[in-house]
Amino acid sequence: MSCSSHEFFSGKEDDFGGVIVQFTQSMETNVFASLLRASLAQWKLQGKKGVWLQIPIDSVNLVEAAVKEGFYYHHAEPKYLMLVHWIPGSNNTLPANATHRVGIGAFVLNKEGQVLVVQEKSGKFRGTGIWKFPTGVVEEGEDICDAAVREVKEETGIITEFKEILAFRQSHKAFFQKSDLFFVCMLEPLSFDIKKQELEIEAAEWMPFEEYATQPFVKTHELLKYLVDICLAKKERKYTGFTPVPTTSTFSEEKNFLYLNGRDLSSL
Amino acid sequence: MSCSSHEFFSGKEDDFGGVIVQFTQSMETNVFASLLRASLAQWKLQGKKGVWLQIPIDSVNLVEAAVKEGFYYHHAEPKYLMLVHWIPGSNNTLPANATHRVGIGAFVLNKEGQVLVVQEKSGKFRGTGIWKFPTGVVEEGEDICDAAVREVKEETGIITEFKEILAFRQSHKAFFQKSDLFFVCMLEPLSFDIKKQELEIEAAEWMPFEEYATQPFVKTHELLKYLVDICLAKKERKYTGFTPVPTTSTFSEEKNFLYLNGRDLSSL
Repeated sequence: MSCSSHEFFSGKEDDFGGVIVQFTQSMETNVFASLLRASLAQWKLQGKKGVWLQIPIDSVNLVEAAVKEGFYYHHAEPKYLMLVHWIPGSNNTLPANATHRVGIGAFVLNKEGQVLVVQEKSGKFRGTGIWKFPTGVVEEGEDICDAAVREVKEETGIITEFKEILAFRQSHKAFFQKSDLFFVCMLEPLSFDIKKQELEIEAAEWMPFEEYATQPFVKTHELLKYLVDICLAKKERKYTGFTPVPTTSTFSEEKNFLYLNGRDLSSL
Repeated sequence: MSCSSHEFFSGKEDDFGGVIVQFTQSMETNVFASLLRASLAQWKLQGKKGVWLQIPIDSVNLVEAAVKEGFYYHHAEPKYLMLVHWIPGSNNTLPANATHRVGIGAFVLNKEGQVLVVQEKSGKFRGTGIWKFPTGVVEEGEDICDAAVREVKEETGIITEFKEILAFRQSHKAFFQKSDLFFVCMLEPLSFDIKKQELEIEAAEWMPFEEYATQPFVKTHELLKYLVDICLAKKERKYTGFTPVPTTSTFSEEKNFLYLNGRDLSSL
């Protein structure tokens, strides 16, 4: 809750001299506006810097009033809008919004030298007859290595074990003004029988790698040519990518994956 | 502009059967609401799927009306809010919002075996006396390799050439619900004289690598221990990271960097 008395909002303090107020109950717009003005005056006296307002979409009636008091948008998710106001006269040191979406492509090679490929029902490859690696978007809070295993399972039914990140590409203005990081992953198949997803996938099959690589589309696409070269080198065991190593930091108990060249690191 | 007649909004069509309306002029809330209702009815008849409204912060008066018509937040930047509405009854296939912030840490080693280190004026290391690699956030639309060179120059005045990405870490809930990708980069110094940035940097110096590596903080931090091992292996030329290769795609004229193990790829 946000309103401790009838006079000021109470918020949580952050590590940077700021305060964050989360609104969980609906409120009249004019009540909100006068409480916000009073609270801002108090925060200013207290020397606060960044003030954050997290307003659920159900309380959209408060947004205009907040903007009138000098707040602007920081980020938004489907169910809430985060506004921020920097009180000091100096340049703000507020954290930037998220800038990248993260995607994966999966190179799944079986013992017969066949690669797992799909045709998609929608998107720019729809109806082209082009066979491509399974791809997908890494979900909020998901590890890249888990996302690759999940997407392959969802699209083709194949169970895999994550091996390596072979390469990655950064591209800009992928959607609106945001950028994209696309990780090409190698996975080892643990099952063989394909069961394709009906909604997104037109066809899925195991294809000799040569057949995939000699598609005209692949041969005229500079990025895909590099990926074919990498996969060929990997097939011959002449290429090392980055493998995930779980690590902890002193700041949190969370396990995070560090991706590194494990072959070259003797301490592993 | 958004209003082609007095009856409907006109928008740009996208590649996925959707339409995007950008508002560039202020409008009365009730005029907006009735035009939006009429437009939605028309888009529905036309079989449109996703409808996007990009509303500048100056037109914040329109936000509540849009939400009342079934729109919800997709993303926000300081100067605008993007709302979306999925017309069909089926599950939506709208693109996800950006999920990751991207940062860099710079390993800059000179010919005397000294590493470039800094002490920061703010953040969690303030006042701890801990020496760390220069770090920073990749800006919107910026390449990772350029960001590393820029941050080193800004913080220490040292001019560098980007060499390799040695490793990277993915962590979650780094700020609000967003994730973080942190790339450890190796750069070669092209200048020697340090000129530290006054605002953020308390001190900057060239330090024997051993002295950096034996700081108690580094030795008790699992992630930093890995990075020390990687840097040591790199120092002995026994470690290969990913190098950037510019590529184009058939879909756009933009140059994008593909990061890969260049030593292992004979085609390079």
